[in-house]
Amino acid sequence: MDEKTKTSRKIKAGLEQAIRDSGLEDGMTISFHHAFRAGDKVINMVMDTIASMGFKNLTLAPSSLTGIHSPIVEHIRNGVVTKLYTSGIRGELGEAISRGLLNEPVHIHSHGGRVHLIQSGELKIDVTFIGVPCCDEFGNANGINGQSRCGSLGYAKVDAQHAKHVVMLTESLVAYPNHPASITQDYVDAVVEVSEVGDPAKIGGGETRLTSNPRELLIAKRAADVIIHSPYFKQGFNLQTGSGGASLAVTRFLENEMVKQDISAEFALGGITSTMVAMHEKGLIKHLLDVQCFDAGAADSLARNPNHIEISANEYANPSSKGAVVDRLDIVILSALEIDTQFNVNVITGSDGVIRGASGGHCDTAAGANLAIVVAPLVRGRIPTVVNRVLNTVTPGESVDVLVTDHGIAVNPARNDVRQQLVSKGIEVVEIETLYQRAMTLTGKPEPIEFDDTIVGYVRYRDGSVIDVIKRVKQ
Amino acid sequence: MDEKTKTSRKIKAGLEQAIRDSGLEDGMTISFHHAFRAGDKVINMVMDTIASMGFKNLTLAPSSLTGIHSPIVEHIRNGVVTKLYTSGIRGELGEAISRGLLNEPVHIHSHGGRVHLIQSGELKIDVTFIGVPCCDEFGNANGINGQSRCGSLGYAKVDAQHAKHVVMLTESLVAYPNHPASITQDYVDAVVEVSEVGDPAKIGGGETRLTSNPRELLIAKRAADVIIHSPYFKQGFNLQTGSGGASLAVTRFLENEMVKQDISAEFALGGITSTMVAMHEKGLIKHLLDVQCFDAGAADSLARNPNHIEISANEYANPSSKGAVVDRLDIVILSALEIDTQFNVNVITGSDGVIRGASGGHCDTAAGANLAIVVAPLVRGRIPTVVNRVLNTVTPGESVDVLVTDHGIAVNPARNDVRQQLVSKGIEVVEIETLYQRAMTLTGKPEPIEFDDTIVGYVRYRDGSVIDVIKRVKQ
Repeated sequence: MDEKTKTSRKIKAGLEQAIRDSGLEDGMTISFHHAFRAGDKVINMVMDTIASMGFKNLTLAPSSLTGIHSPIVEHIRNGVVTKLYTSGIRGELGEAISRGLLNEPVHIHSHGGRVHLIQSGELKIDVTFIGVPCCDEFGNANGINGQSRCGSLGYAKVDAQHAKHVVMLTESLVAYPNHPASITQDYVDAVVEVSEVGDPAKIGGGETRLTSNPRELLIAKRAADVIIHSPYFKQGFNLQTGSGGASLAVTRFLENEMVKQDISAEFALGGITSTMVAMHEKGLIKHLLDVQCFDAGAADSLARNPNHIEISANEYANPSSKGAVVDRLDIVILSALEIDTQFNVNVITGSDGVIRGASGGHCDTAAGANLAIVVAPLVRGRIPTVVNRVLNTVTPGESVDVLVTDHGIAVNPARNDVRQQLVSKGIEVVEIETLYQRAMTLTGKPEPIEFDDTIVGYVRYRDGSVIDVIKRVKQ
Repeated sequence: MDEKTKTSRKIKAGLEQAIRDSGLEDGMTISFHHAFRAGDKVINMVMDTIASMGFKNLTLAPSSLTGIHSPIVEHIRNGVVTKLYTSGIRGELGEAISRGLLNEPVHIHSHGGRVHLIQSGELKIDVTFIGVPCCDEFGNANGINGQSRCGSLGYAKVDAQHAKHVVMLTESLVAYPNHPASITQDYVDAVVEVSEVGDPAKIGGGETRLTSNPRELLIAKRAADVIIHSPYFKQGFNLQTGSGGASLAVTRFLENEMVKQDISAEFALGGITSTMVAMHEKGLIKHLLDVQCFDAGAADSLARNPNHIEISANEYANPSSKGAVVDRLDIVILSALEIDTQFNVNVITGSDGVIRGASGGHCDTAAGANLAIVVAPLVRGRIPTVVNRVLNTVTPGESVDVLVTDHGIAVNPARNDVRQQLVSKGIEVVEIETLYQRAMTLTGKPEPIEFDDTIVGYVRYRDGSVIDVIKRVKQ
């Protein structure tokens, strides 16, 4: 091989060339990361190209999907995609799958569970397509330099390590050696320049927005009170806030009390937000452990702050990892579409039974944390959040410790220690049954949704087991 | 699991406990890294403990060994170790193996070839013992903070990724999360505190010392001249210098010319020395790609200089990696115990046929580089370096381009382009046959060493093939 060819051998003339050279065949499995969330431009671009090249019968295995990925509906209709693994689905694709679009039920996994499925061999990725703002000709890449910066490549790292063939799609081809390298050259087969991989402004939209909703703020304030009066609020504690307005807002209410009591957190975990970055830069959170940046401000912080640390999804949450950070969590604040009187949580199907959510790190962090707090409004419009039995269980009630609503706080009977401490500190605690009754009073008992017997989705628990099935809504 | 147990579950009360809990059994394979070189204190300590616990029939697979590891002789005699993979062996152990100590021949591999053997499944590491100056209770570790700093953990990273069970031996247990983490918690099973893991002052001894030998300096000067007048000496070039006094000294002679011609190197690769660090800090070498620090000064630079970058042995030199840095090398300067008229190089056996060297990155870098220069004195005492046929081939002549000796410079006939350019720039070039004859004149034709038919070592080329065998010296 001559000198030039030796060093530039991975560069592909275009996406089609990269796909052709990847060895992709009908029936194979392809994957993507979701660091750009609603700003992602890679999945639709690559899937359109793959479809135009005539590939069929593929398994699509992105780490997650959002509402912008509705073009996948057509790819399923046309037989390009016949099997789907993902953490989340929203919008038109969720509607269509809930009505029976896929012949094989979709596999909904958690973020940690996905790594487990990959490592245990169920999910064998043949080709992964990794969109990045910058990459050198040998494949060294990160998400913190270049135009469209997504920050942490925590999910993509796992795919790069395990996929047979790794294609980097980059907005800019930078000088070798690109550093820091979140993904290193020894995992990369091909590099292709594309005009855009994502819009950072849209990372922070949807479920990771900063809320100004008064009810969400009220709930967040109450959740902060629970944390402050729990046994875990002490020097060097750590926490994670899941997506969802109330959940993300909790940190803002913790700040005053942390300053007042001169308490700093050892680390904040998970989807990192600009709010957490601000607290980090004030010295209130010593480390940010970041599998995914939840907004453009967090992405920029990863470049700037040495103690803002990128971690892989394996380090974050894989239950079969030798040590996931979720195992060390003191407190996690999580949202819910529904929670039932057994504290089981549904974050995947709406009150109409249609898929419109994401498993995410919900069950991973709930299982790992010493104190798992679910925050949710008691009712949403005419729809109760607290129910007798959730439509679908994503996180089992045994992992959930406290429910904070705008109508009161309930503690899982299994955590009498937490209940006693909260009560002793003057926090009013009610039975979850009482909250359920209150919800019923407000909304009336909802008409049960009619499902038929067709299964449209498997809810996979973090250990790979099927914890629930999603049935087809009667049309 | 209660909270305390959950976070401290990896901590072992002592080394014996760590070994017991590792699941180590007779017949298994254990490994170590050699970042402390002659200052290593881990291998002997762990092997003594393993021996005292009664284990037998182990395969020992350190990334390399030095003269301080002679206690292994006893462990082989006592049946604790029955099989050995290593890049290098020196001193008493080399003597003993050359005389037939091991029933199965030792496997001598290159640094890149070792990763290939691990990934291809021949070398299955059951338990690896990784000595580090600092580690947290979950296993996040680096070599740049703490008391005994070895710097890069480039070899250990590979073992951590591939070993079934990973034990960290650390001088200091630091607060979670330890950062930067060269080895991350998701690869670590156990952490044990020990008093010492190595002596950084002894990393830079032996083959990585800074020479003041006038003949070595003369050879280094001439090698620098060859580089300067080669087609590869231009803005953005890159280079590696192997161990050995003359080889390491070459950079010092390049410096003046780089300043004069206003040329900077894009990167220097490999065992990084304080000399390279100084040039880096002057802006003459933009990046240091560091699989192993060759002295304590380099180890400290890795902590200080953001463009001093730690790379794994897989990134460095594995021929089956998706992209090793050696593939991008312009120039490498390497040493030799012997080189023959076909340019084959021996760096493993002395003139008496006894094993006393290391394969290291020799054949990896020679194969990858555009210009592989071997530097060696024509004779050492009464022993010729340039010979008719090397006792053992570690690097095949087809990978070697130029030989620089104190008695003249020879160019491989396959590289007439290089020869022509050097001659056109006024560099005097002779035939390697001429150098051989000159050596014979100086030393006389040495008595052939008598070997018997017993094979005591396999020299494994970087692709895993057996490129040569080492026979037993007749006693």
